Amino acid sequence: MLGNFSYCNPTKLYFGKGSIKYLADELPKYGKNVVLIYGGGSIKKNGIYDETVKILRSCGKNVAEIAGVMPNPTLKKLHEGVQIARRAKADLLLAVGGGSVCDYAKAVAVSVHCEEDPWEKYYVRFEEPDCEILPVGCVLTMVGTGSEMNAGAVITNTDAKLKIGHVFKDERVMPRFSVLDPEYTFTLPRHQMTAGIFDIFSHICEQYFSGEDDNTSDYLAEALMRSLLHSSRIANANMTDYEARSNIMWTATWALNTLIACGKSTDWEVHMLGQAVGAHTDATHGMTLSAVSLAYYRHIMPYGLKKFVRFAENVWDVDPDGKTDEQTAEAGLAAMESWMRELGLAMNITQLGATADMIEAIADSTLIMQGGYRVLTRDEVVKILKESL
Amino acid sequence: MLGNFSYCNPTKLYFGKGSIKYLADELPKYGKNVVLIYGGGSIKKNGIYDETVKILRSCGKNVAEIAGVMPNPTLKKLHEGVQIARRAKADLLLAVGGGSVCDYAKAVAVSVHCEEDPWEKYYVRFEEPDCEILPVGCVLTMVGTGSEMNAGAVITNTDAKLKIGHVFKDERVMPRFSVLDPEYTFTLPRHQMTAGIFDIFSHICEQYFSGEDDNTSDYLAEALMRSLLHSSRIANANMTDYEARSNIMWTATWALNTLIACGKSTDWEVHMLGQAVGAHTDATHGMTLSAVSLAYYRHIMPYGLKKFVRFAENVWDVDPDGKTDEQTAEAGLAAMESWMRELGLAMNITQLGATADMIEAIADSTLIMQGGYRVLTRDEVVKILKESL
Repeated sequence: MLGNFSYCNPTKLYFGKGSIKYLADELPKYGKNVVLIYGGGSIKKNGIYDETVKILRSCGKNVAEIAGVMPNPTLKKLHEGVQIARRAKADLLLAVGGGSVCDYAKAVAVSVHCEEDPWEKYYVRFEEPDCEILPVGCVLTMVGTGSEMNAGAVITNTDAKLKIGHVFKDERVMPRFSVLDPEYTFTLPRHQMTAGIFDIFSHICEQYFSGEDDNTSDYLAEALMRSLLHSSRIANANMTDYEARSNIMWTATWALNTLIACGKSTDWEVHMLGQAVGAHTDATHGMTLSAVSLAYYRHIMPYGLKKFVRFAENVWDVDPDGKTDEQTAEAGLAAMESWMRELGLAMNITQLGATADMIEAIADSTLIMQGGYRVLTRDEVVKILKESL
Repeated sequence: MLGNFSYCNPTKLYFGKGSIKYLADELPKYGKNVVLIYGGGSIKKNGIYDETVKILRSCGKNVAEIAGVMPNPTLKKLHEGVQIARRAKADLLLAVGGGSVCDYAKAVAVSVHCEEDPWEKYYVRFEEPDCEILPVGCVLTMVGTGSEMNAGAVITNTDAKLKIGHVFKDERVMPRFSVLDPEYTFTLPRHQMTAGIFDIFSHICEQYFSGEDDNTSDYLAEALMRSLLHSSRIANANMTDYEARSNIMWTATWALNTLIACGKSTDWEVHMLGQAVGAHTDATHGMTLSAVSLAYYRHIMPYGLKKFVRFAENVWDVDPDGKTDEQTAEAGLAAMESWMRELGLAMNITQLGATADMIEAIADSTLIMQGGYRVLTRDEVVKILKESL
């Protein structure tokens, strides 16, 4: 059954070619001081920076900047951004970039008016903000994380070697608006597109492979997976196919904006394994997930057999006739493996730079989640990592 | 491809058994004067009225009431409610009931501070509100319309014999919060439950059977249909199966909160036919839809064959092997027909009191929509209505 839950997702989304123009409708709702937040500067090459600044100027905004937000935004960078936003007396934080930039903006938003150290409050004690939360707007340039319509913000404390995500409960942490123009993602390199696609797929799997009930959330998860599979193949053949890229972008948003977790338990162990691999190899997030997924799912399959059979039939169109449940389930995972190879995803952690002598350390960094079909022992973590080599 | 669109749906939903308690979290956000809006009084028999009023009192609210909202709320009733809300200096309108009560509350919300006649402004000229919009909260007791999470409000002008729905663009018209407790729907009579189920199904079909593109919205529509079919059969066998009723309730919300129409065209001709039948027979809305659906879909099938084949395969698990596309599509509609008979839905308009000599008048009342696979001529409307006899 659907367990009790609440749902609220007030982010206004402007979707499609040329949607940046709606920034001009949103900006008048906020005060004059905008802090523009971006990453390594690719938006200066592809024109998105100029387009954004032009609209900010035409709306009469004062613009301060936080540049150089890294793929894994650090606590040090957060402290720096808080100072900039305070000095600028920011009324709005405008994130232009991918999930990291958007995550970072949300972390700044809950920290500018926070009197404590944000790391202690939000990433150690996991408290909700009790101060004013600055509004965040987002112009998305990379697809995968879903950060454009959720209240999650991952921050890395490099001193403590900890990368921690806090999904805030307070919906005021979610972006007030997000501009989603699929064409803004066309200039990404192929491996970033495919890593993003697998990140989306993994988000869905993490929520799907948990629980025994027959609920609407799992049907919706299957729909998102089917749509993603279909569009990913088209985009892989033609990276500038607008239809495919737009469906992938939209799927990413709904894969991680809380909808498909409504009323059900979730797993997230693949993310724990992948993040541990990432901490020791600095590999791309989506690729760390693909490199451990098959070993993990084949390991837990016997404990969640019914769901794996359903996955095979409803997502991969496996015909169960004449097959045992185990064979149907394995045929589903085999179809998933074949799709992953087709996309050119990392199929093992060796490709990402992990070696056999790193396994114990990676296992030490792997958090054990409680919501999946099998709560792993440390030995099982080691086994899965070895099988992922 | 996904056409350009914007999406914003800020309604906070509290879902599950006992969720009425969250009313106490919401009420302090609004001023002291609450207008409680309800229908024929069934909430006084099943305890929901007492439970609601107790929470309102405990939160120190002044409570005025608009009782007796009818299944098709009239303009006269709207004028009456506006006067009550003005006298009470309403800070919040709390709708406790089904879609009609919730629709009505939204119509009052945009009319209390409106200086013009709301019918002229909202239902003749279809303008957006430019006055203050009163906040609406909703406690849902019937499932089907999706009114709990959208900005639609249907009002009937009995003098002009017009029943008109306005789906406002302004998301502030949407309920600020809705309480969705599946157990609140257990006391409904069976025919109201099944009529609600078909209303949900029809909402999905109206958005699904339009457009040729392969987009995420259609995958999500299929997921909602599959979940609904599954749960409807369980609920039909056991009306107090919480799992089934909760999934049906959740499906209803997502069937008509704009998600599955994002980026695509939609039809709505079945609703136009059904509403015309309803205007001449006063039959239950969901039953008017079921009574005309098969004739309509069989008529338009050749014009949207590809989508009907997809519907057969993805929603009804029809095996296309050895079948022509037409045969596959018809097998899908035959499966739908068999499900409808299983639920005991009205299968023709004769059952609802329509007769052959009413056909011309019903056809005169039927609006022709532009978004479906076939823009009907008046002759085709007559043909479909005759086939529905």
